[in-house]
Amino acid sequence: MVDIATRVYNHKWKIDPIVRSLIDTDFYKLLMCQSVFRNKPDTNVTFSLINRTKDIRLAELVDEGELREQLDHIRSLSLSRGESTFLRGNTFYGKRQMFRPDFMEWFEGFRMPAYHLDKRDGQYELTFEGKWPEVMLWEIPALSVLMELRSRAVLKDMGRFELQVLYARAMTRLWEKVERLQGVQDLRLADFGTRRRHSFMWQDWCVQAMQEGLGDKFVGTSNCLIAMRREVEAIGTNAHELPMVYSALAGDDADLKQAPYKVLADWQEEHDGNLRIILPDTYGTDGFLSDAPDWLAGWTGIRIDSGDPAEGSERAIKWWTSRGEDPREKLVIFSDGLDVEKIVELQAQFDGRVRVSFGWGTLLTNDFRGLVPGDALAPFSLVCKAVSANGRPTVKLSDNPRKAMGPAAEIERYKRVFDLGAQEELEVVV
Amino acid sequence: MVDIATRVYNHKWKIDPIVRSLIDTDFYKLLMCQSVFRNKPDTNVTFSLINRTKDIRLAELVDEGELREQLDHIRSLSLSRGESTFLRGNTFYGKRQMFRPDFMEWFEGFRMPAYHLDKRDGQYELTFEGKWPEVMLWEIPALSVLMELRSRAVLKDMGRFELQVLYARAMTRLWEKVERLQGVQDLRLADFGTRRRHSFMWQDWCVQAMQEGLGDKFVGTSNCLIAMRREVEAIGTNAHELPMVYSALAGDDADLKQAPYKVLADWQEEHDGNLRIILPDTYGTDGFLSDAPDWLAGWTGIRIDSGDPAEGSERAIKWWTSRGEDPREKLVIFSDGLDVEKIVELQAQFDGRVRVSFGWGTLLTNDFRGLVPGDALAPFSLVCKAVSANGRPTVKLSDNPRKAMGPAAEIERYKRVFDLGAQEELEVVV
Repeated sequence: MVDIATRVYNHKWKIDPIVRSLIDTDFYKLLMCQSVFRNKPDTNVTFSLINRTKDIRLAELVDEGELREQLDHIRSLSLSRGESTFLRGNTFYGKRQMFRPDFMEWFEGFRMPAYHLDKRDGQYELTFEGKWPEVMLWEIPALSVLMELRSRAVLKDMGRFELQVLYARAMTRLWEKVERLQGVQDLRLADFGTRRRHSFMWQDWCVQAMQEGLGDKFVGTSNCLIAMRREVEAIGTNAHELPMVYSALAGDDADLKQAPYKVLADWQEEHDGNLRIILPDTYGTDGFLSDAPDWLAGWTGIRIDSGDPAEGSERAIKWWTSRGEDPREKLVIFSDGLDVEKIVELQAQFDGRVRVSFGWGTLLTNDFRGLVPGDALAPFSLVCKAVSANGRPTVKLSDNPRKAMGPAAEIERYKRVFDLGAQEELEVVV
Repeated sequence: MVDIATRVYNHKWKIDPIVRSLIDTDFYKLLMCQSVFRNKPDTNVTFSLINRTKDIRLAELVDEGELREQLDHIRSLSLSRGESTFLRGNTFYGKRQMFRPDFMEWFEGFRMPAYHLDKRDGQYELTFEGKWPEVMLWEIPALSVLMELRSRAVLKDMGRFELQVLYARAMTRLWEKVERLQGVQDLRLADFGTRRRHSFMWQDWCVQAMQEGLGDKFVGTSNCLIAMRREVEAIGTNAHELPMVYSALAGDDADLKQAPYKVLADWQEEHDGNLRIILPDTYGTDGFLSDAPDWLAGWTGIRIDSGDPAEGSERAIKWWTSRGEDPREKLVIFSDGLDVEKIVELQAQFDGRVRVSFGWGTLLTNDFRGLVPGDALAPFSLVCKAVSANGRPTVKLSDNPRKAMGPAAEIERYKRVFDLGAQEELEVVV
C-alpha cells in the first residue's frame, strides 16, 4: 500500500537536497570551529574550491542552476533542537559538554554565509569570504554537494535495473573489503569519507554495513549527523587549516616558525586524551618534529596525512623514543589515500609497536571505480581550502610536493623558514 | 513516513505466503489442464515429490509445520476476478479465448485438492491423488514452496547487511549474464524458472531485469502471474506428463507404442502455430521421430529437454529434411540445464539453420551458487511427477538415462516397445 500523503509530499519537492543538516559535516570542523571561535573569531578568511583533477570539467557536468539551488538550500539550514541537544549533551571522546555553552549559543543562531560562484575553463570558481568561524563551515558541505551533483549527473540517464545493479556492485565491493578486514586483529577503523562521498545515502549505508560487518573494529564516523543517527562515535581532531591560517597571520619569519606550535598550544588548553593528536606535515614533518617543544611529545598521538605512511610512522616512533616517550602508548592515525590492502599492511607493520588507528576516506565512501563506462563515477581530487587570512595568502607544503599549495614566492619562503629539504613526489590517490 | 496501517497490517500476518495466486504457476500447466479437462477428465493420477539431490535433507532443513501452513494456504486460494478476466480476455500466442468458457467456469470454482505429507529418511514424502485436471495443478506450487522454504531456512540467521549483499551479489551475477546476452544477435529467450526459483520476488526481479536489459530478445515468462503483472508474453506448450499418463493408460504394447502420438493428435485439435511444439524425448527421441506420422513433421517445432542439446537439434534438422520440410522455418526450443555460455554456443551453432529459442530455467532464477558458506543456497534437483494413472505406474526414459523414472520392469518393457538402444549418461545440472 502506498502512503498517499507521502507520495504527494515527495512530489512537491522543488529539489532533492543533498545536505539537509548543519551537522552533516565532519566532526573536527565543529571542534576546530569552537577553537577558532574562541581564539581567532575576527580573522577574515577566504576558502576556495580547488579541483586537482583538471580533466573532470565540473562546470560542464554539473548544471549551475542546480548547484546554486543546493548551496542556497544549505544557507537556509539552522541547527535543529535535536541536533543542538545532541551536541550539548552527548559524550564525545569520553567528555561531557565538549561544546561550550557560548559556542552552542552562537551555533544555534548560525546561518551559512554567502558564497561566490563563477565558471572558468570548464571549472567552477566557488569561494567563501568572511569571518573564519563562519566561512570554515562551508568546506565539507561544498565538497559533498559537488561530489553528489557529479554522481547524479552521471546516473541520470541510467535505467532502473541498471541503477540497482550499479549499487549492487558497489555494495558487493564494499562488503568484500569488510570481509577482508574481519580477519585483521586489533583493527580500529573509522569512516573519514564525508567530503568525497558518492552521496549521503551511500555514506550512511557504508557506515551501517561496517557496524554490522566489523563490530568493535569499527570505531566511528567523522560525520556528525550519521554518528548521531546511527549511535556511533563521532571521530576527528584537527586539520591543516589551523596551522595554515595561523601561519598566514604571522608578523615575521620568527613568528611564522612558531605558528604551528602556537596552534597546538591553543588546542591543548581545550582538549586532552585522544584529542591531542599532532598533525605534523603542514610544512614538513621532519622539521616540525625536530624543532617541537617537549610538551608536544607528551601528546597522545600523531596523524599521518601525506608522504609514505610507513616512513611517517617510523619517523614518529623514532621521535617519541628520542624524547623519552614509550611509542607503545602512542596513537598513530593513518588517514591518507587508504584502501584495504594498505590498511592490512600498515596494521601488520605497526601493531604492537604503537597503537594503530585508521581514518578511511574516499575509497570507503566513493569506490565506484570501474563501475560505469568511461569510469565516470571514479572519485577525484576535489578540495576546499583556506587560501588567505586577513588578506595574506596561506601556504601548505605537506610531505608530498604534489599536495603543496600557495603562491610560488610564499612557498619558497616557507620552505626556507621551515628548512624543508628534498621531498619524494607521490601520486595523490584521491 | 511509515504508513501505520500498512505496518500494523503486515504485523498481523500469520504466515508470509509463498504462493499467493492460482496462476503463480507455469502457463503450460494451464494449457495442459484444459486439454486434460477435455480429453481425460476422470483419470485418477498420483503426483509425487522427488528430490534427486539426496544429500539435501529437506525434512531436516524445512519445518513440517511451516510446510503444512504454506500448502494449506495454497488450498485456500481461488481464481480472482482479475485473474479470470486476464485468462479469458488476454491474447496468448496470438489467439483470443485460448481458454474455453467451459474450462474457465470449472477453473473459477476450482480449489486445490488434498495433499499427503510424511517424512522418511530426512526427506518429505509429498503426494497428491485424485482427478488428473485437479492434481496436476499441484506440481509447480509444491515445488516453489519447497524451494523457497529451503531458501528461507538458509537465510534466517543472516544479518541485514549480509542479506543485502547476498542479493547484491546475485543481482550482479544475473546482470553480468544479461550483459553477456545483449550482444547475441537474433536471441529469443524466455524465463522457464518458476519451479525451481530461489523465491517468487527473486523470479519477479529477474523477469524485470531481463525486460530492461534484453528488450525484444526477452520474449516472455512461463509464469502466468508474472506475465500478467509485468505485461509480457506467457510462454509454454506441453510437458512429459501428457505422454507419461497416456502411456500408463495404454491397454497393450501396441497401444503403448501409439500413446505419445495420440497425445499430440489430441493437442492438434486445440492448438496451432507456435503451440504445435513436439517434445520428443519421453521414450527416446530417435525412435519417436523415425516412427512419427507425417502430419507431425508439419508441426512448428521441437523442444529439446534432455540429452546433448546440439545433437538433439541436429537430429531434428535431419528428420525435417528427410520428411521434405525446410528446417529454416522450424522452431527449436532448448530448455534443459541452460546457462549463458551454453545459450551463446547453441545460438551460434543453429542461428540461420533453424529458428532458435531458449527456455532458461533454474540458472536464471536460482543461481545462488557459491554465495553462502557450504553452498547452502545452490539449486538442487527437485521434481514433482505423475507416478501413476488409474493405478498403473508411469514411466519416463528421456534422452539421458539418469533422468529415467518408473518401476524397473516397466522401464524394461518401455525400452523394448520404444526400441531404445544405448544412451549416453549426462550429468543432470538441475
